Amino acid sequence: MTLRLAGARVVTMDAKRRVVEGDVVVEDGRIQAVGRSGGQAVKGETTIDCSDLVIIPGLIQAHIHLCQTLFRGFADDLPLEDWLARRIWPLEAAHTEESVYWSAMLGAAELLLGGTTAILDMETVRHTAAAFAALEAIGLRATAGKCLMDAPSAPPGLKETTERALQEAADLCAKWHGAAQGRLRWCFAPRFVPSCTGPLLRAVSDLAARAGATIHTHAAETPLELQMVKEQTGQDEISYLDSVGISGPRAALAHCVWVDEEGIHRLARQQTNVVHCPSSNLKLGSGIAPVPEMLAAGCRVALGADGAPCNNRLDAFEEMRLAALIQKPRLGSDALPAAQVLELATLGGAKALGLEAEIGSIEPGKKADLVVLDLSGPHVVPEEADLISRIVYAARASDVRHVIVDGRIVVRDGKLKTAKVEEIRREANKWAGTLRERAGL
Amino acid sequence: MTLRLAGARVVTMDAKRRVVEGDVVVEDGRIQAVGRSGGQAVKGETTIDCSDLVIIPGLIQAHIHLCQTLFRGFADDLPLEDWLARRIWPLEAAHTEESVYWSAMLGAAELLLGGTTAILDMETVRHTAAAFAALEAIGLRATAGKCLMDAPSAPPGLKETTERALQEAADLCAKWHGAAQGRLRWCFAPRFVPSCTGPLLRAVSDLAARAGATIHTHAAETPLELQMVKEQTGQDEISYLDSVGISGPRAALAHCVWVDEEGIHRLARQQTNVVHCPSSNLKLGSGIAPVPEMLAAGCRVALGADGAPCNNRLDAFEEMRLAALIQKPRLGSDALPAAQVLELATLGGAKALGLEAEIGSIEPGKKADLVVLDLSGPHVVPEEADLISRIVYAARASDVRHVIVDGRIVVRDGKLKTAKVEEIRREANKWAGTLRERAGL
Repeated sequence: MTLRLAGARVVTMDAKRRVVEGDVVVEDGRIQAVGRSGGQAVKGETTIDCSDLVIIPGLIQAHIHLCQTLFRGFADDLPLEDWLARRIWPLEAAHTEESVYWSAMLGAAELLLGGTTAILDMETVRHTAAAFAALEAIGLRATAGKCLMDAPSAPPGLKETTERALQEAADLCAKWHGAAQGRLRWCFAPRFVPSCTGPLLRAVSDLAARAGATIHTHAAETPLELQMVKEQTGQDEISYLDSVGISGPRAALAHCVWVDEEGIHRLARQQTNVVHCPSSNLKLGSGIAPVPEMLAAGCRVALGADGAPCNNRLDAFEEMRLAALIQKPRLGSDALPAAQVLELATLGGAKALGLEAEIGSIEPGKKADLVVLDLSGPHVVPEEADLISRIVYAARASDVRHVIVDGRIVVRDGKLKTAKVEEIRREANKWAGTLRERAGL
Repeated sequence: MTLRLAGARVVTMDAKRRVVEGDVVVEDGRIQAVGRSGGQAVKGETTIDCSDLVIIPGLIQAHIHLCQTLFRGFADDLPLEDWLARRIWPLEAAHTEESVYWSAMLGAAELLLGGTTAILDMETVRHTAAAFAALEAIGLRATAGKCLMDAPSAPPGLKETTERALQEAADLCAKWHGAAQGRLRWCFAPRFVPSCTGPLLRAVSDLAARAGATIHTHAAETPLELQMVKEQTGQDEISYLDSVGISGPRAALAHCVWVDEEGIHRLARQQTNVVHCPSSNLKLGSGIAPVPEMLAAGCRVALGADGAPCNNRLDAFEEMRLAALIQKPRLGSDALPAAQVLELATLGGAKALGLEAEIGSIEPGKKADLVVLDLSGPHVVPEEADLISRIVYAARASDVRHVIVDGRIVVRDGKLKTAKVEEIRREANKWAGTLRERAGL
């Protein structure tokens, strides 16, 4: 099985950040060659003409809640407490196996069509296997996990005992971690410190280490959260997470908006992954994460759209542009330049998923997660401008022409090949209505 | 000439903010009926099936520099002073008649394809007639004017004598104000206070009043600008502009980021139009304009993308979403809700152009500036969510299916009907290269 993307400009994101002209050749799901052009077509080879097109590494979003995609537009312009307690908790509690499946299909369709090839996902408490079934079918690369909540203050409709939560997580990990030839992976996903007991968090750290799995949680999103954690544990949130073993390259902490200098240095020293979600942090009024300061300190930073109800897009182009823009009033218009932002959405995301040896750049030996862009629309002209600037500041999800995940063509000519969008739309609309009724909204 | 957009959901933006189901009927460029459905087709009537589609008033952007579209991506991640002095001034000075024409065509193509039907535009100092020729051909509704700069501190390559600047402005006004059956209008466009003498500003105020034309300028974009104006005039910028007659419904002031409570009350009392440019204010590091405070005080506020090199899109959907998002960390997640933002991009824009009796809503008697959206993509599902939220937070420029300006179909099925995109791209690329050379970049 050989696939040749022929005659493109290739933004490799290799160590030298080379942009080369030529072909990308894929064999058995891995990149075999980059930049050599033409030559004899191998027998049985599939060739896609990519002349006048641009190939970038598949974009990676390291904080997504696919289970919330059906709630898009159900929770706008609300104070944060109402957003969570009156909308998100009841809607998550109302989920069925089928609604989780179609929520994942809807989100994954949007992600793939918009050039996101890999995600770190937090599902709800129940029916996580249904999300994996959807991800298996639609062809997105995903590290996903059930949400864990066992603290007295966790919402009653979603709270589990520590044992039950851990048992189901371990069972699902055994089943899904490494499924679909390694394209699907498990993560342990305690919701956030205020919803989780210390014993649960410590057990998660052990289980994750044993399974070689990522830990995916939220941290330091709001000042209220910091205060709750301080009252609950007597510690600063980042140090508390560290004390229960949730730190280091295996851990991905979404948000980290409210982290002080000491926290930044701890995150950097331990190489904990920070997942920056600019749209979500704005829309929920959380604030602006000190990303340039984190990068200067040596932190690992990735990007993510979070869930559809706090964005309301799942669009990597949007998050890249916004990540750059929101730092500039605070630090000057030269803060977080385009090239650095593209790193966060590729190499940074790969690290957050623990897959930096496999994805995040276009180099021989890596998995073939590739996005082919058509940058000929009036909104990305002139072509003579810096290519990375065009991708980060001007391009948009609708410029995605082809998408390859694990060597498989999942989007061709802007059309999803692995599922029927019409069916997804119909089922998503039906289940969104059902969930709203079940949640009493 | 009758055009029927049949069977849509219509977001009227009328006084009751009704959303109705049915047809929009257009006769001789004006809306003749809204919401009645079916009936006998009139002989010679053109019908566009809009079932399952959504019609909104054409979006209005009240601060654009079409002459800068060719500079997109030539001035990213630079400190503001370098952005203007090292890139924008030299590039504007390098413009030729042809490059101004193709810059306007490129920008107008992007705007129309993205659902913007009317703009307030500031051109450069020279060749403004070429921009009008482009606007006449491509069918965008525009109020445009040549940039006026006569102060000693104005850039040498663009500075004119007061007399020459005013004479050319008056001549162009005589020629273009009301052209293309009123679709094109003139505005007097002094760049900003630090580039203009008091006599020029006062003369502009008189000329605009006599011609019934809009005054389009920048104000209070940065603290440095405020300080320069204070030193130059001894006054606060908003009061100084008022003192030279640049205030009231005829004036549109782009940015107004750095306006204090007194300034806000002056703007509100005099009904001066504020044009909020959220992307530009972020990308150039200017800050966040106090828009909710302005609205609470009764100010008129419109939206705009500014020029391509400080955005880098000319996308009304982007500006709407961002206008809502950037206020929330400061004021809470319920600040500037979706419905209010859609008002800024329609009714607010109409006022800034002095055209509130003609455009900005879908009502019988108004000009037919209409945008037909296809909200069936996975990124705007579920359909059951609030329609205005879907438009403001989730929809994107690529969801625009048809666009009508002044009763004329300018975009159909996502394709520009009034100009050849391929030719625009080719000429824009050529002229962008030429300008860069001429500017010595």
